[in-house]
Amino acid sequence: MTELRNKRFLLAQRPDGRNVEESDFRLDVASVPALEDGQVLARTLFLSLDPYMRGRMSAARSYAPPTELGAVMLGEVVAEITESRAPDLKPGDIVLAYSGWQEYAALPAKACEKIDPALLGGFPLSYLLGVLGMPGATAYFALDTIGKPKAGETVLISAASGAVGQVAGQMAKRAGCKIIATVGAADKADYVTRDLGFDIAIDYKGKDAKTLGAELAQHAPKGIDVFFDNVGGVTHDAVMRNLALNARIIICGAISAYASGDKPDVGPRWNRQLLVKRAIMQGFLVSDHRARWGEFRSAMAGWLKAGKIRYREDIAEGIEATPRAFIGLLAGANRGKMLVRVGS
Amino acid sequence: MTELRNKRFLLAQRPDGRNVEESDFRLDVASVPALEDGQVLARTLFLSLDPYMRGRMSAARSYAPPTELGAVMLGEVVAEITESRAPDLKPGDIVLAYSGWQEYAALPAKACEKIDPALLGGFPLSYLLGVLGMPGATAYFALDTIGKPKAGETVLISAASGAVGQVAGQMAKRAGCKIIATVGAADKADYVTRDLGFDIAIDYKGKDAKTLGAELAQHAPKGIDVFFDNVGGVTHDAVMRNLALNARIIICGAISAYASGDKPDVGPRWNRQLLVKRAIMQGFLVSDHRARWGEFRSAMAGWLKAGKIRYREDIAEGIEATPRAFIGLLAGANRGKMLVRVGS
Repeated sequence: MTELRNKRFLLAQRPDGRNVEESDFRLDVASVPALEDGQVLARTLFLSLDPYMRGRMSAARSYAPPTELGAVMLGEVVAEITESRAPDLKPGDIVLAYSGWQEYAALPAKACEKIDPALLGGFPLSYLLGVLGMPGATAYFALDTIGKPKAGETVLISAASGAVGQVAGQMAKRAGCKIIATVGAADKADYVTRDLGFDIAIDYKGKDAKTLGAELAQHAPKGIDVFFDNVGGVTHDAVMRNLALNARIIICGAISAYASGDKPDVGPRWNRQLLVKRAIMQGFLVSDHRARWGEFRSAMAGWLKAGKIRYREDIAEGIEATPRAFIGLLAGANRGKMLVRVGS
Repeated sequence: MTELRNKRFLLAQRPDGRNVEESDFRLDVASVPALEDGQVLARTLFLSLDPYMRGRMSAARSYAPPTELGAVMLGEVVAEITESRAPDLKPGDIVLAYSGWQEYAALPAKACEKIDPALLGGFPLSYLLGVLGMPGATAYFALDTIGKPKAGETVLISAASGAVGQVAGQMAKRAGCKIIATVGAADKADYVTRDLGFDIAIDYKGKDAKTLGAELAQHAPKGIDVFFDNVGGVTHDAVMRNLALNARIIICGAISAYASGDKPDVGPRWNRQLLVKRAIMQGFLVSDHRARWGEFRSAMAGWLKAGKIRYREDIAEGIEATPRAFIGLLAGANRGKMLVRVGS
């Protein structure tokens, strides 16, 4: 019998003040550790790749500690239990866990969330990392607690074809809003208007804030009521020029800062505009809403089954593809929620 | 009988991109107009000077239209009715009106709010323009609807000895909070700590955001829960470095931008910090809360009479003193709520 080998990616160096490169990660092949009491062996099926990982590669203070140099890169996975020394889990069980960029992990059973596959209603397990997982919950709770879109309002979604954006836009559309999407490629614009039913899609690439702002003003003559900001940067500035009275701005992500090498974010400040428009700008973190996860998951699963929410994934094949797929995600090369199929 | 002469200040030129100068205003002596039916003649007793007036001198789009060139500078006054051709007001009545920088105004009676002097409980009429007027209401409603200070929290008030700041700080102190004040002079620091009971006062003058931020971190090791921002600029940046989780930031004013010539406000952006701290930054405008004015005024009058709120005014003498007093206000030369005694 061959010993199981565990391919994994370690953080080799921090990309401080520059873009992420493949050499920031080191492929390492380790043996799969023996289990201790209470542990399970989890074989990764799908690994989720998300912009927040860029933050953990940096030593800067954030809402979570950084990944240590030499440690396995973090990430949420769907995994299959292959061995168990814990009473609650048995081989064949499907779990969610934060075991990171690797093929296998020995985990405490209590660090695994067991999933009933019936929840998925025939949709693939990978959906647990997207529309039925963290990105879907981000869209759901950020709109519910901050955005509060009302029928007749205009909602702007940045990174609108991404994991969070596509779900948020469809939810706001179902609430009776006009959806303006900003995206970074012509085919993404086609996707969100043709497949998702968003009203307007604008390719922001190569435009400055003034130009993009003028374009937005044409599509939203009464201003933007809800701004779901996954991006920051130029798009942020363009939308802030076009707020409606009592606008709500969800600060959900800042991938533009990640993509530009995580340099200090300096630019026009919109305090006066917030005052004039009596607008709310609020930071959102999905982990604050764990207590309502069951409500979210059953609502979203219902909408999926009823065909009310559509969803697209971009799946890279094999653990070796992970660094390149992650760098592509930061640059907007993905088409839909970015995942890696690690095992099958 | 001598004809009544009306001294008034007109907007002579716009101070675009520079500080306000006395030559931006032109002293004009006009005759007092004859009254039409429904009008009253109001003799100004006190004129309120407020930072928002700087915004109206500029043609830039805001929540209110700019003052026209050649028009009387706007402003709220306490006035005495000296003639009336309206049934609701008679000579001797005291009113609030927005008649601006002038000694007399012919006004529609319906543009005047008649005041029952008993409301004041012996405090001077000028309080109607401060602690019992717009600045007091700003403190009251901004804390009630955005800041929501809770016992044990740390509250930072910028421009803490000003018309709004002194009231806001005392209200939050009474709610059981620790009050950190930023002020622009040593004697203002003494005033807010000795007379108003604020816990800490910091003179921000000459400090950059990093230095001021480090000083704040010492006084607020757990971070700032409520930030009542009347100032913007360096103080804003210093506080944003020191937010507590779930902080609330009231964007109430931006006098630092006015004082620096109203140039575009460019600097570090705090979107990422809002996200990490799940903080709310919200623009506030007192005129949105007119419906609750009666509640505010009777609560504040009660606190004044009970000695629970203390209050300081800075009164310039005579209409001619107005431009200089206003320029001083923008530079922080005032000590307490800035007013002009126009008549007596």
